Amino acid sequence: MLDKRIDLLKEEVFEANMELVKQGLVIYTWGNVSAIDRESGLVVIKPSGVSYEEMSAGDMVVLDLDGNIVQGTKRPSSDTKTHLVLYKAFDTIQSVVHTHSEWATCWAQAGTGIPCYGTTHADYFYGQVICTRELTDIEIEQDYEYNTGLVMIETLQQNNLNPLELPGMLVSNHGPFSWGTTPKDAVHNAKVLDEVAKMAYRTEIISNRIKPIKETLLNKHYLRKHGKNAYYGQ
Amino acid sequence: MLDKRIDLLKEEVFEANMELVKQGLVIYTWGNVSAIDRESGLVVIKPSGVSYEEMSAGDMVVLDLDGNIVQGTKRPSSDTKTHLVLYKAFDTIQSVVHTHSEWATCWAQAGTGIPCYGTTHADYFYGQVICTRELTDIEIEQDYEYNTGLVMIETLQQNNLNPLELPGMLVSNHGPFSWGTTPKDAVHNAKVLDEVAKMAYRTEIISNRIKPIKETLLNKHYLRKHGKNAYYGQ
Amino acid sequence: MLDKRIDLLKEEVFEANMELVKQGLVIYTWGNVSAIDRESGLVVIKPSGVSYEEMSAGDMVVLDLDGNIVQGTKRPSSDTKTHLVLYKAFDTIQSVVHTHSEWATCWAQAGTGIPCYGTTHADYFYGQVICTRELTDIEIEQDYEYNTGLVMIETLQQNNLNPLELPGMLVSNHGPFSWGTTPKDAVHNAKVLDEVAKMAYRTEIISNRIKPIKETLLNKHYLRKHGKNAYYGQ
Amino acid sequence: MLDKRIDLLKEEVFEANMELVKQGLVIYTWGNVSAIDRESGLVVIKPSGVSYEEMSAGDMVVLDLDGNIVQGTKRPSSDTKTHLVLYKAFDTIQSVVHTHSEWATCWAQAGTGIPCYGTTHADYFYGQVICTRELTDIEIEQDYEYNTGLVMIETLQQNNLNPLELPGMLVSNHGPFSWGTTPKDAVHNAKVLDEVAKMAYRTEIISNRIKPIKETLLNKHYLRKHGKNAYYGQ
Repeated sequence: MLDKRIDLLKEEVFEANMELVKQGLVIYTWGNVSAIDRESGLVVIKPSGVSYEEMSAGDMVVLDLDGNIVQGTKRPSSDTKTHLVLYKAFDTIQSVVHTHSEWATCWAQAGTGIPCYGTTHADYFYGQVICTRELTDIEIEQDYEYNTGLVMIETLQQNNLNPLELPGMLVSNHGPFSWGTTPKDAVHNAKVLDEVAKMAYRTEIISNRIKPIKETLLNKHYLRKHGKNAYYGQ
Repeated sequence: MLDKRIDLLKEEVFEANMELVKQGLVIYTWGNVSAIDRESGLVVIKPSGVSYEEMSAGDMVVLDLDGNIVQGTKRPSSDTKTHLVLYKAFDTIQSVVHTHSEWATCWAQAGTGIPCYGTTHADYFYGQVICTRELTDIEIEQDYEYNTGLVMIETLQQNNLNPLELPGMLVSNHGPFSWGTTPKDAVHNAKVLDEVAKMAYRTEIISNRIKPIKETLLNKHYLRKHGKNAYYGQ
Repeated sequence: MLDKRIDLLKEEVFEANMELVKQGLVIYTWGNVSAIDRESGLVVIKPSGVSYEEMSAGDMVVLDLDGNIVQGTKRPSSDTKTHLVLYKAFDTIQSVVHTHSEWATCWAQAGTGIPCYGTTHADYFYGQVICTRELTDIEIEQDYEYNTGLVMIETLQQNNLNPLELPGMLVSNHGPFSWGTTPKDAVHNAKVLDEVAKMAYRTEIISNRIKPIKETLLNKHYLRKHGKNAYYGQ
Repeated sequence: MLDKRIDLLKEEVFEANMELVKQGLVIYTWGNVSAIDRESGLVVIKPSGVSYEEMSAGDMVVLDLDGNIVQGTKRPSSDTKTHLVLYKAFDTIQSVVHTHSEWATCWAQAGTGIPCYGTTHADYFYGQVICTRELTDIEIEQDYEYNTGLVMIETLQQNNLNPLELPGMLVSNHGPFSWGTTPKDAVHNAKVLDEVAKMAYRTEIISNRIKPIKETLLNKHYLRKHGKNAYYGQ
């Protein structure tokens, strides 16, 4: 029963990793997807530094929430601790994605959140996509990947944000993380985040007087797709 | 007879929706095409939130101009009311397209019309591609999609424009709409609108002293392809 | 003999038109290639407004230098007169290409020549890619396509330039033309022109203090590929 | 024994040249890869001006470090002397790549090094990707390709840099060179260099107050992938 669920999750996580490449979000080994089985607390994640051409579902690594390897012959992604701390902090998140995608990464490098300039953004993210502060020297030198997760949690909590209403954010100097209720959903959010980052960049160049959209429009678009009165889709 | 025409239109609308993806104008479910059979007043439109990979011609929804579903098991596009109000206002329009295409959307987000900077633009759009004003809070909160159509009509009429001479425009904070005499034609205009938006963006960066082309050149190019003295094509 | 040469040229011109699409320089019907058989003075050119998917070598139109159709059932490109006047002015040119390619067109719309900022440019163009002046109202209204050719000739001659050393230029508000000794060569130059336009655009953004490369470097690169002491290639 | 090694190297160098095209780093003949067999001192390099479609492994040219052709019927790349002087100066380099890739070339044209704005950069390059000074007139006119190599060596040495820790750099007004321990590795670095150049360009546009990442973060990312305490990969 558990074995079957984990096998299925390994397949889903593998497919989601391949989708990152197909969507143009990742080259070489520049990304990773994980997912959690909440009942058992087991996490499935991409192995570290394995190229997408050679990877199979069987290469996915299974760990418990403390990072102990339960299944798999390869080392897990070097960003594993970041994923784990997010799962521990937010139990509504079932899958986490990290990329160095070509537009969102630039906003992260600039240390700047992505303002909500239009309905494309508002359809998925309930407000600005925020960017963390820089890590301190000590946070970098001691348990860097763990602290990368902590600074995201800190930023979400300080801004009183629900991670499912803002299913992606930027780590300063680094790049985007996104999440969702399934690996497919988390990758979808990673793609939207990059498109939104691209459009915001261009919007600022067209007009340097541009402001975020007003709250009524943000509410309208976000809530017509999400929440109990949503009327988008089938 | 009517059935045959509607079946044919469903096929055309389906093909036009697929062409949006092929032309790189749409990812996921970010666009929709509709068309009208003027004799019966029936409108064919893409279903809401259905992915392009899984969609078939049979999924197209048929409605009357008041939005009553006449044929189809799926819910129509959430933007349906916008399409319907355009068909009611302008009887020369036979097909409407909406996208969040990557360049035109940025001009819409900036709330700025696209000036006619060259002959590529003038070959299709008889002057600036205009952008609507922002919707008011009340327009957003009450019958949003209907009001999105109204504000386009208002903008065209205030500028005394013929929709077939300006077969596309921008809705502020949102994105582009285009139209034409067939679904294929309306998608063609959506593609040209995005190319023209891209080139105008770059033109302004190359020179900040740039002005729209003069009226003689606009007339020359628009009228050599359109109107009774056109001499372009076969 | 002549028939065979013309048939071959029709094939070459057709292939070169298809190559424009393959190289991403043209969408829809936004470009045209022609070539001349100097012995007979006959010119082969793409038909007007025919889509690339439906076009075959047999659709190419054959004209004399005065524009009289000698062979073909379709109307020639609406830009035919521009091509003809270039062939008359410069007998070293054997093929002409016109596109609305996505980078060179932006410089043309800005009315600005493309400075030589690097060796990529210098390998093909012996100095700045120049841009014509705007056409006057009378030049636009009376024999527009013919005058488009004349203004290019005027600009080359005023700058005392050899068209084979500068195998491409920009028509203000319009787009790029290029040429060469074969249709393949002329399309190659159209592609390089667009790449060079893209790189110059980005170079100016990276540094606003940038100047064209110095003459020694221009000479070195241009002359190691061209002229009697060239040592590039086989 | 030597013959077998050289045959294998010719195959690797050929594959690496083809990979440049596949990765979008090269069009036409705008790039070259070489590699050295350190035991014999023989260098394998792409032939000059041969198109990628027509090239085979057998066309690779074999030379000694003084440029004497040992094997092959074609002329070697016109940039051969640049490659040779790099192999002579740095015995840790086993392969050299030169491209005119679309982003790195723009920084080279601007004469500007690429600052390290994020962890993507720090994962591969241990600090800024530096740009050489301009060549003098004499250096251009006398033995240009040789001097192009010398100015890179000068720049690396003046900055006290280890070429394997900075496996790519820019030649002013010209374009990027990269290197590595295998042809595959050197091409990988050429691709990363172009991605990093693209992201740095966009980062500077998003924020004009941006500074390079701090040393602790640079050390963390570079050293978790490289050096004796690396923990990235399998």
